[in-house]
Amino acid sequence: MRIAVLGTGMVGKTLGPGFARLGHDVVIGTREPAATRSRGDWEVDLPLLPFREVGEGADLVVNATSGQGSVAAVQAVGAEVLAGTVLLDVANPLDFSAGFPPTLTVKDTDSLAEQIQRAAPQARVVKSLNTVNCAVMVDPGRVGDGSTTMFAAGGDTEARQVVVRLLEDFGWRDIIEFEELSAARGMEMWLPLWVRLMGRLGTADFNLKLVR
Amino acid sequence: MRIAVLGTGMVGKTLGPGFARLGHDVVIGTREPAATRSRGDWEVDLPLLPFREVGEGADLVVNATSGQGSVAAVQAVGAEVLAGTVLLDVANPLDFSAGFPPTLTVKDTDSLAEQIQRAAPQARVVKSLNTVNCAVMVDPGRVGDGSTTMFAAGGDTEARQVVVRLLEDFGWRDIIEFEELSAARGMEMWLPLWVRLMGRLGTADFNLKLVR
Repeated sequence: MRIAVLGTGMVGKTLGPGFARLGHDVVIGTREPAATRSRGDWEVDLPLLPFREVGEGADLVVNATSGQGSVAAVQAVGAEVLAGTVLLDVANPLDFSAGFPPTLTVKDTDSLAEQIQRAAPQARVVKSLNTVNCAVMVDPGRVGDGSTTMFAAGGDTEARQVVVRLLEDFGWRDIIEFEELSAARGMEMWLPLWVRLMGRLGTADFNLKLVR
Repeated sequence: MRIAVLGTGMVGKTLGPGFARLGHDVVIGTREPAATRSRGDWEVDLPLLPFREVGEGADLVVNATSGQGSVAAVQAVGAEVLAGTVLLDVANPLDFSAGFPPTLTVKDTDSLAEQIQRAAPQARVVKSLNTVNCAVMVDPGRVGDGSTTMFAAGGDTEARQVVVRLLEDFGWRDIIEFEELSAARGMEMWLPLWVRLMGRLGTADFNLKLVR
């Protein structure tokens, strides 16, 4: 599958190589490739393309930008390019402008995933992976016996299945699907507790296991 | 311990007898005892007192009213009566006025627990138990092998310990404490995901286990 990962922060730097290890053809999208390449910390050996080109021919586009830049990034990729494409959103609408702990830029009656859906109305948006640290996203075995829970929300069943298969390839076994993208509201509102837990536990290598 | 439980809905009807089974001296607070007694569904065999009397002599006051009535209930008990008293808040600020799923009346930069703290500035407020259904609150063994996770947030260490001991008496073993009441924001913002999960799983007998 050709996968375009948007974002060159920690999440993009982890997910891009993660998808490549699964055998996919991965390209990374950024605002200005030259600026990203000149950064001291960019050492990912994957093609780097500007947002306006990166979505061309992609079977899956993954939003791994920071929450505050996500809608602009999706708009830069282009709603026409994204029409019919599966768009996996793993970002969180965290606002660190007032320091720590962060607040949420959108919540409760709306979500970042829904904002992205509105920015690319014909994209097939699925929310997933945002509930864990990026190292855990691609390697659920980092936490306990590897059987913790992942969520996937989206109204397009086929698109959700594309994402679920990728989750399974990463090693996720307990995947709970929601048939409405609006379930992303709850998935994003998990972050404030996640952030407190990270502070309390002193590690990001944790996750919830849904016991029922 | 003398425990005053505020609220005569499902949560109060479950927690009151739950504390009584642990050997505590329990009284239930309501706006109008006569109105509560005349309800067809009130069959709890515990003293019923008006809010303005129920807090007198209580070692612990438990807010088990609906989120939207919680601040008024605490005000009716009286900030003077509550001064120095441990106040366990188990409520959630759910707003069902626009139907299902509910939204939150307060979130992100504030919480119901903090609203309650402001209504009773000298009470020793602890947030806990709000993350599970009331049947699970008093019987964590209903879920899996009984080892799921409970949170307790509050700035008063001694008050938090009073609550933690009660949680342990109910059978909770994995209790994560937060030293700031503002951690209640994240605990309350867990509810939107909880509500979706209840719909998806078709049961309220579930909980998260924090794996680390």
